[in-house]
Amino acid sequence: MIVPGFQAAAVEAGLKKAGGLDLALIVADSPAAAAGVFTKNRVKAWPVLLCQERLRRGRAQAILINSGNANACNGPRGLADAREAARVCGDLLNLPEESVLPASTGVIGQPLPLDRIKEAIPRLVARLRPGGLGDVAQAIMTTDTRIKTAYIKGKVGAREVTVAGLAKGSGMIHPDMATMLAFIFTDAAAAPQLLKRLLKEALPFSFNRITVDGDTSTNDTILLLASGVAGNSLLKGKESGAAQLKEYVTQVMADLAQQVVADGEGARHVYRVSVQGAASPTDALKAARTVALSPLVKTAMAGADVNWGRILCALGRSGARFDPERVEIAYGDQAVAQEGRGLGEAAEAAAQKIILTGSFTLNIKLNAGAYSDYYDTCDLTEDYIKINASYRS
Amino acid sequence: MIVPGFQAAAVEAGLKKAGGLDLALIVADSPAAAAGVFTKNRVKAWPVLLCQERLRRGRAQAILINSGNANACNGPRGLADAREAARVCGDLLNLPEESVLPASTGVIGQPLPLDRIKEAIPRLVARLRPGGLGDVAQAIMTTDTRIKTAYIKGKVGAREVTVAGLAKGSGMIHPDMATMLAFIFTDAAAAPQLLKRLLKEALPFSFNRITVDGDTSTNDTILLLASGVAGNSLLKGKESGAAQLKEYVTQVMADLAQQVVADGEGARHVYRVSVQGAASPTDALKAARTVALSPLVKTAMAGADVNWGRILCALGRSGARFDPERVEIAYGDQAVAQEGRGLGEAAEAAAQKIILTGSFTLNIKLNAGAYSDYYDTCDLTEDYIKINASYRS
Repeated sequence: MIVPGFQAAAVEAGLKKAGGLDLALIVADSPAAAAGVFTKNRVKAWPVLLCQERLRRGRAQAILINSGNANACNGPRGLADAREAARVCGDLLNLPEESVLPASTGVIGQPLPLDRIKEAIPRLVARLRPGGLGDVAQAIMTTDTRIKTAYIKGKVGAREVTVAGLAKGSGMIHPDMATMLAFIFTDAAAAPQLLKRLLKEALPFSFNRITVDGDTSTNDTILLLASGVAGNSLLKGKESGAAQLKEYVTQVMADLAQQVVADGEGARHVYRVSVQGAASPTDALKAARTVALSPLVKTAMAGADVNWGRILCALGRSGARFDPERVEIAYGDQAVAQEGRGLGEAAEAAAQKIILTGSFTLNIKLNAGAYSDYYDTCDLTEDYIKINASYRS
Repeated sequence: MIVPGFQAAAVEAGLKKAGGLDLALIVADSPAAAAGVFTKNRVKAWPVLLCQERLRRGRAQAILINSGNANACNGPRGLADAREAARVCGDLLNLPEESVLPASTGVIGQPLPLDRIKEAIPRLVARLRPGGLGDVAQAIMTTDTRIKTAYIKGKVGAREVTVAGLAKGSGMIHPDMATMLAFIFTDAAAAPQLLKRLLKEALPFSFNRITVDGDTSTNDTILLLASGVAGNSLLKGKESGAAQLKEYVTQVMADLAQQVVADGEGARHVYRVSVQGAASPTDALKAARTVALSPLVKTAMAGADVNWGRILCALGRSGARFDPERVEIAYGDQAVAQEGRGLGEAAEAAAQKIILTGSFTLNIKLNAGAYSDYYDTCDLTEDYIKINASYRS
């Protein structure tokens, strides 16, 4: 996975309990247009606060990422540590400290092991290469079981452009947020304001429509950097090329979001909660989100139990307006409830087969209006508990 | 457990998969003052709708309760079935059908096994006795592992009065709701409007401050009946006796609510999330509720992991206003974080011992104002998943 204008590398710095790659660096050949969206949690990790400050200029040239430690809730020292790591990195790259964006993921409330990071940075810089993004995707994993990358080649006007992304996240994943970490790169030439707009407009089709556990992190970060080496004329927003770029960015983010939810901690079944016929856009979103978040629906799915009563019950507390007697619930095309009551055992047996495929859509028709929305989520299994009851030990 | 003026009984009618008592009846010797509060879920079980209608008169003389089937989401037949069961019961007791309040708990979306219920009612009526409330508490259990009853003797003026209650519920338990089912009886003489007020005013100190899984049921019901045989002059609200009665009702409800959360499905640790120093009452409630509901906090507690970072993280997304740098978190009296950062391993080791006692208070000081609130909850264990993934099978 190569995006012209960027080099990347990852090394093992001894930050992750389990070992393996845990420190990563992406460097643009020259200052890149840059934008980011971040956690809405009131408690923000230091790297998030630092990124927000540094992105005001709309430019960045490097991203330094560590896993194993979130650099959050550890006092003012955390800010000094994030700055120092960026400074050491910038010195070796001959870049101003402010052009290096930090990102961290891992345990909250512990000091960043700065010495190990500083010791590893020279090795990291020495390994920079155009094909290094795959290593970065691996280095940012924590409880993830799979690398998450997405890649698209397309056209902006007559120029060929690349958009590629990588992400990590499998717990603490929730709407109105980025995922834990996602980084998207393009060689298109685009203004920072446009990049920011593309990120925001893609969220409702990607990271803001997935949930694993309803918890949101202190560290959620999505960054988008554009090197401009594709040679198109600078996109500012109204050009047809901006619409093309938007499509690619949205596709890459949607692809990454899907991968995140499919790797949900302990997930056996992944499903889309699709709500149609809602009385308003807000009703559609509330209904989809409440069903997607319901622990009782999630545990029913874990047991491949076609428990549509729990779905109806979750709809009922969602705040969405509807007449329970008009609701229709289907697994894929297999209806199991109509007019608020069950269609019987044969329908449920057929629906159970659809659950057991491991990936399906839960189709809910409220018959209360013309609006629809969706949420992607996964079931809640014993393994989610095991992973999270012993995360720090 | 005897409340003068009431008789009760329970029988096995073959409604529960696992067998055991599953049909219960409480009858007042003469029409009792009655009030109820019910689920706010838009999808309401038929017995809830019927109770709401019948309680408009402020009087009732019997409660017929079944477990094993929720009589919810099963079409208009469910209403006819609830009415017919009440009618059969009323006929045998020489009571008008409207004076019999129905309540159901169990699986959603299946027809009520009316034949079995009708067949069992004569046996039920034949067993009525003053001491039967304990059997009722047993008959209304579903996934509950323990009977939940509470009993207080006190004074209203010079008269001795009794307030007793019984409840069931261990999953689908969430704020802004009653529990699944709770029934409270007193021999005090009180007007229906006062009973309704007592219920509502006791909720914020009982069932509206507990959560197990954030899901809310279609069937949640709390009923309060007053036989009046204690002989006090009728309480309407402003008498000092009304304040006394309020205290007893609140104590009984708080006691039952505690028992419900302690019996949370799969719970190993029960804890109170106590928030102090919030900027407003709403902020205090939001903060306590969000921490209590957080799956990541709940799973940390399951693993006896003093993961205060997750608590701070949940506070951060709660919507409550505070400065993360001023937050203090303690397990019981053992502080683990101050000024937004950890106090180290010795403090955490001491706090872990407090978690391992199985029952503790999580004390959170926001240092942002003068308001406080709390939520009682339990941890999220593998057993919760097991119970709920296989509930119907």
